[in-house]
Amino acid sequence: MKSTVYEGNKTFTVIEREMEAPARGEVRIKVAYVGVCGTDVHIYHGMMDKRVKTPLTIGHEMSGVVDAVGEGVSGFHIGEKVVVRPLDHRGQKPSDKGISHICEDLKFIGIDSPGAMQQYWNVPAFTLHKLGATTDLKLAALIEPLSVACHDVRMAELKAGETAVVLGGGPIGMLVAMVARQKGANVIISEVNETRIGMAREWGFTAVNPAKIDLVEFVKGETGNRLADVVFEVSGVQAAVDVMTEVAGIRGRIVMVAIHGQPKSVSLFKFFWKELKLIGARVYEPEDYEEAIALVEGGALPLERMITAVRPLHAIQQVFEDIDRQPDGMKVLMDCQV
Amino acid sequence: MKSTVYEGNKTFTVIEREMEAPARGEVRIKVAYVGVCGTDVHIYHGMMDKRVKTPLTIGHEMSGVVDAVGEGVSGFHIGEKVVVRPLDHRGQKPSDKGISHICEDLKFIGIDSPGAMQQYWNVPAFTLHKLGATTDLKLAALIEPLSVACHDVRMAELKAGETAVVLGGGPIGMLVAMVARQKGANVIISEVNETRIGMAREWGFTAVNPAKIDLVEFVKGETGNRLADVVFEVSGVQAAVDVMTEVAGIRGRIVMVAIHGQPKSVSLFKFFWKELKLIGARVYEPEDYEEAIALVEGGALPLERMITAVRPLHAIQQVFEDIDRQPDGMKVLMDCQV
Repeated sequence: MKSTVYEGNKTFTVIEREMEAPARGEVRIKVAYVGVCGTDVHIYHGMMDKRVKTPLTIGHEMSGVVDAVGEGVSGFHIGEKVVVRPLDHRGQKPSDKGISHICEDLKFIGIDSPGAMQQYWNVPAFTLHKLGATTDLKLAALIEPLSVACHDVRMAELKAGETAVVLGGGPIGMLVAMVARQKGANVIISEVNETRIGMAREWGFTAVNPAKIDLVEFVKGETGNRLADVVFEVSGVQAAVDVMTEVAGIRGRIVMVAIHGQPKSVSLFKFFWKELKLIGARVYEPEDYEEAIALVEGGALPLERMITAVRPLHAIQQVFEDIDRQPDGMKVLMDCQV
Repeated sequence: MKSTVYEGNKTFTVIEREMEAPARGEVRIKVAYVGVCGTDVHIYHGMMDKRVKTPLTIGHEMSGVVDAVGEGVSGFHIGEKVVVRPLDHRGQKPSDKGISHICEDLKFIGIDSPGAMQQYWNVPAFTLHKLGATTDLKLAALIEPLSVACHDVRMAELKAGETAVVLGGGPIGMLVAMVARQKGANVIISEVNETRIGMAREWGFTAVNPAKIDLVEFVKGETGNRLADVVFEVSGVQAAVDVMTEVAGIRGRIVMVAIHGQPKSVSLFKFFWKELKLIGARVYEPEDYEEAIALVEGGALPLERMITAVRPLHAIQQVFEDIDRQPDGMKVLMDCQV
C-alpha cells in the first residue's frame, strides 16, 4: 500500500509499506478521499513541529470504506461507507467533567497519531460514523469540516430570522455560512479576497469586502440598526477582532472559531456595555457529525463547488506547494484510490 | 432643602433650594441614605466630565420614603419605603430588541440627570421598588449595588456546587461573592489589598492574594484540577484579564463585570481551546432588584459590615477626599436626613 509521510522541512515522501491488520477495537479503512485542512498546511509550514512527531502520515478530513474489522468490534461490516471523527478522548479525566471532545489530554488523530493520507488507515472503531450506501465519497470528505461548522452554529444557538455575520470566507467560513443559512438565518460574509467574495455571491450569499466598505454601517443598513445577532470570527486577524464587537448588536453572540495563536487586543468594554457573549467553539461532538452527514446526504448545500481540485495521493508534495501558490482555491481533495 | 452639587474640578457645594412638586408621572422621595459608588468617585476625579453636565447633583445608590405623589401615579403612597432603579429607558427603539436596561439611548439617573445626594429627589414612578415597612434604610442603600451582583450571578447561570472565582474584592466583588455563596457555590476571592483579604476571610470566604500565591495552582488544588466553573472579572486590570482564561476550567463562564476603559490583551486561543464563554453583564433588570430586596430583607448576608462609614450629607466634599485617602474602606453612606 501507498502511504504519504510528512518528514518535516516542507517535505512529504510517498512510501510503499505492508498493510496492517486492525488491532483489537480497530477497523481498517480503505481511504477514498482526504481533504487538505488549514491545519495540514500549518504542519507543512513547520508551524506545528513541536507537536507533530515526524515522520508522520497526516490528514483527517476523509471518507472511505470498511476494509477489515478487528476483534471486539461490532456493528461495522466490510464494504460499508464511513467517515472518521478524528478525536481520541481515551485519556479523559474526571476534571474534564465528561466534556470529552475537548478533554485536556485529547489526541487529535492525524496530528498526534497517524492520519488518513494513505491508501489504508487503521482507526479505533469508536471514531466511525456510517454513511448511506449511495453517499458520494468526494462530498463525504467534507463532513469533517462541515461538522466544525455545525458545531459552531449549534454553540451560537442561532435561530431562524436572526442575522449572522461571518468574518472570513475561507472553507470553514463558507461552511458556517451554509449551515447558518440552512437554519433560516440571514447571512452576511465579510472577506477581503475578491475571488472568494465572488464565490460567496455565486452561492447566493451577501458578501462584502470590509477593506472597501464600512462593515458596521452596511450591517446596520441590512438590519434596521439592530446589527448582528451572531458573529462568527473565522479569520484569525486583529482587524476582525476589532470589528466583531462593533458589528454585534445588543446581547449579540460572537463565536470564536479562529485559532488566534497570539493574544489579541479586545474591547472588553463593548462586552460589558452591550452584554455581548463570546463563545469558544472547538471541533465537534457526535451529534455535529450526524448533522453534517444528514446535510451532505440531503444534498441541499452547494458543497460540490467547494471542491476546487481533486489530485492523486502520490502528488502530495505538489499539492501542498500549489496551495501556497494559489490562495484563491477552496478545498483540495486527495484521491487515495489511484 | 439641602442639595449637593458637583461643580467639576473635584469640588462639591451644598446649596439650599426650594423643594419641587413632583411632575406628572413622578414621585418625590425624602432621601434617607445614599451610598458612594465607584462611578461617583470617577465623576469626582473628572474622568466622566464629557458625559456629566455640571453643575449636577449625583448619586444613585439610595433608600428613602415617598414624600409626594405626582399626577397619573398609582400604587405609591406617602410614607412608603422605596428604592430607585436609576435607569431611564424611555428613549428605547425597536433596534434595542426590547432589552431596555441596556438600550442604546439609556439615561442613567444620577449621571445623565440629577441624582440622590440631596434631601428630596423627584424621580419617575416607574423607577421605584417598594420595601417592607420594617426594612432597614441603611442596608436598603446597598440594594442598588447588590442588584448588580444579582444580575452578574444570574447572567453566569451559577449553580449550587460550582466553584466561582471572584477577581477583585472591592464592594461589587464582595457582593458578587455573597450572592454566589447564597446560590450554593464555593467562592474564592482573589484580591491584592490585604485589608480587604482580611475582611473577606472574616466573612467566611476563601480569599487569596494573587501577587503572593499562584492563583491557578491554588484553584486547581481546591477543585481537584477542575478549575473554576465561573469567573467574575471585577477588577478592571490586565493581570486579571491574563489570569481569567487560565483559572477557568473546560467550558467555564467568565462574567465581565469590570469597566475596562481601554482594550485589553486577551487570549482568544483559550476561549477556543477550552470552549470558554465570556458574558458581558451591565447594571440590572427589575427581577434583579426584587432579588436584592429579598436578600436585604431576609437578613442572611453580612451586609451591615459592608458599611464602613455613615457621614452627614453636608460633609460631601470631605467624604470624597477621605475616600481618596483611605483605599481600605468598603461602602460609605451619606445620611441625607441630618
